[in-house]
Amino acid sequence: MRVLVTAGPTREYLDDVRYLSNASSGKMGYAVAAALAAAGHECVLVSGPVGLAPPPGCEFVPVETTAQMRAASEEAFAGCDGVIAAAAVCDYRPAVRVEGKIKKDGAPVSVELIQTDDVLAALGKRKAEGRQTPRWVIGFALEAANPRENALQKLRAKQCDRVVLNGPASIGGDRTAAELIGPSGEVVMHWEGSKPAVAGDLVDWIDAWVAAGRPA
Amino acid sequence: MRVLVTAGPTREYLDDVRYLSNASSGKMGYAVAAALAAAGHECVLVSGPVGLAPPPGCEFVPVETTAQMRAASEEAFAGCDGVIAAAAVCDYRPAVRVEGKIKKDGAPVSVELIQTDDVLAALGKRKAEGRQTPRWVIGFALEAANPRENALQKLRAKQCDRVVLNGPASIGGDRTAAELIGPSGEVVMHWEGSKPAVAGDLVDWIDAWVAAGRPA
Repeated sequence: MRVLVTAGPTREYLDDVRYLSNASSGKMGYAVAAALAAAGHECVLVSGPVGLAPPPGCEFVPVETTAQMRAASEEAFAGCDGVIAAAAVCDYRPAVRVEGKIKKDGAPVSVELIQTDDVLAALGKRKAEGRQTPRWVIGFALEAANPRENALQKLRAKQCDRVVLNGPASIGGDRTAAELIGPSGEVVMHWEGSKPAVAGDLVDWIDAWVAAGRPA
Repeated sequence: MRVLVTAGPTREYLDDVRYLSNASSGKMGYAVAAALAAAGHECVLVSGPVGLAPPPGCEFVPVETTAQMRAASEEAFAGCDGVIAAAAVCDYRPAVRVEGKIKKDGAPVSVELIQTDDVLAALGKRKAEGRQTPRWVIGFALEAANPRENALQKLRAKQCDRVVLNGPASIGGDRTAAELIGPSGEVVMHWEGSKPAVAGDLVDWIDAWVAAGRPA
């Protein structure tokens, strides 16, 4: 099996120095890539800027902005059987990127933020492209309020087969608690532990699910 | 000599997940701290979130926001002889931090950014506090346009003894090119090389300058 993994944050610049981002460490996505390689799968890891070395045995595509992540992911996805989208994409960007560095003059600055490309939705739309058996898509949702309801909405809006749901407490840490949400909003699995352990559980689950013919 | 070093970026949150920051890697500040320790000085390293291990022999104070960096730096500065302020402080913050996570609804979001605490100016103001011989203050300036003129303005506005001037190309990289700017705007020194090498040159310069009675 050949699998695309997205990982890490993206950055969206206000000027040449200041940007909008989030504290995603990439640990979960890198752990998933390592678990895929350990299970004998091919892996393409498209990653935003993080302080981690890519796991051995993965193809590695570093990106910085959301548009770059979308382009690299769409290109890699064409040759993959599925995607595990663990990246914490920066989903807003300044409408205008100022060249150079905004000089401070003491006054407040009003910045208009617009939504960036939706990487996961773009992959979901292409899942059946050129294939008799559509590629599978597993998204990640990080929800603070109404988590299961929002995860299910995300699953549907982005044509995911399953969504891995976790909370803001997972960001940057070494451990995570995650629920695997199915297409009717049901909690298929609950995993808790180190990110490598949960990544291993997720890859095991995918292997069994694919072997069973990917039941809905 | 006991020296405060500030390093790394700070983060200013829009909500519990999204923040404003910059790509400062902390490499220059950590190299300065290591050079101070190697030269036999005591060092307190106040650092924003970076992917580096604190150099052995330094007191280490991790912070996240600009307000935290200001508070930790002011506290440490009271017991120091000088400061090398290499941090790339996030100088704007959202006027409002939303609890939880802003939900996307497709519409643009307007964010008002206001200036954060000026850490370097706060230290400059306190340089003479409780001392017959004022503490020395060396700032860093990262300027895209009119670099020397802006560095001199910074030196004056923030009561620095010298300013280390570099350009946006230095951010995140392993090498830097820096000018040491004096109180009349003159270029006292020009250094170029790896960040550890330039940090060593800077500490050597400070040692000689302090030994000479800190001539203006």
